[in-house]
Amino acid sequence: MASSDAADSGKAATTDTESAPRRGGGAAPVSYFHVDFFLRLLLFAATVSALVVLVTSKQNKLAFVPTLRVFARLRAKFNDSPALIYLLAALAVGCFHSLLTLIISAITIVKSAASAKLLFHLLIFDALMLGVMASATGTGAAVAYIGFRGNSHVRWNKICGTFDMFCRYIASAIAVSLVASVLLVALIVVSSYSLYRRSR
Amino acid sequence: MASSDAADSGKAATTDTESAPRRGGGAAPVSYFHVDFFLRLLLFAATVSALVVLVTSKQNKLAFVPTLRVFARLRAKFNDSPALIYLLAALAVGCFHSLLTLIISAITIVKSAASAKLLFHLLIFDALMLGVMASATGTGAAVAYIGFRGNSHVRWNKICGTFDMFCRYIASAIAVSLVASVLLVALIVVSSYSLYRRSR
Repeated sequence: MASSDAADSGKAATTDTESAPRRGGGAAPVSYFHVDFFLRLLLFAATVSALVVLVTSKQNKLAFVPTLRVFARLRAKFNDSPALIYLLAALAVGCFHSLLTLIISAITIVKSAASAKLLFHLLIFDALMLGVMASATGTGAAVAYIGFRGNSHVRWNKICGTFDMFCRYIASAIAVSLVASVLLVALIVVSSYSLYRRSR
Repeated sequence: MASSDAADSGKAATTDTESAPRRGGGAAPVSYFHVDFFLRLLLFAATVSALVVLVTSKQNKLAFVPTLRVFARLRAKFNDSPALIYLLAALAVGCFHSLLTLIISAITIVKSAASAKLLFHLLIFDALMLGVMASATGTGAAVAYIGFRGNSHVRWNKICGTFDMFCRYIASAIAVSLVASVLLVALIVVSSYSLYRRSR
């Protein structure tokens, strides 16, 4: 009777210690890693498409130059503006970051080895990437806004009347960069929610 | 005897449930909340000072206008640029956010009640605030860069030669906004590290 009690209590103890890691690192966190993988796939698609649209945004146009009173062949390229070069750099880093973390996420799902340390590291790199991506989106949007509306106070003339296609390309690249920033916030929410669920 | 046993087991159960949160939310997490409080204090100081510098950045100057070939009294204000108005709005929101979370952090330290749920919520709001603050810093920096260097490709003339004091104020506000963004990244690192330590 005494040995049976001991065996029972031993069994109960084993079940208890097994259930703790299962509750923390089992089914629920792995399902979050599927969400993580899906979001990273979207992030990769967003950064690659924004990068391609930005790089291909060139326009040549025969336009009237009011100051010289002649028609001239004008050319608009993204690398005429340092702000858009910064956006390109940020998108390239974002592309590399999303690809690398996509592979890590895939390996974690296959091996079912979602550790808290990995979640913490992913969260830190996602936060750094969010800082870079959000600032680059802001930088590009500020220049695009001046190009679209101009600023009469400092006599910065609008250029989107002349370079309509160029401006559409730049605006698309910035819109997709904004989506990438939102996806990075979503990834931070998913990672921190996984850590929060494990901490109970 | 039976009642004594019941009392003993009750006492043991109480000790056990108390030790679990102490292990999770005891000495180590509380010390992180001191770091959290200090960083939020810095964040509040940074956003308030950047806000004050930005709002007071006005300059009147008698300058030569080449196109009109006359001297004129020119005025530079931050609200001539939509990008700087966005920076102002972001700094105001950041100021409110840092003050609110500073109070929450202080209450948590006083009551020693650092819960995982609070850390998770602080992390989410810090991530959202980082997105807003980083994008506003980028927006302001892009406009300030054009003001400082100009852009010969689209004939946007530099204005910092004329409005030197105005440009110094704007540059200071942007530099402090960048510091605020870095502080928000640091706050995310501290909160996620606290959650990571609790998840073991």
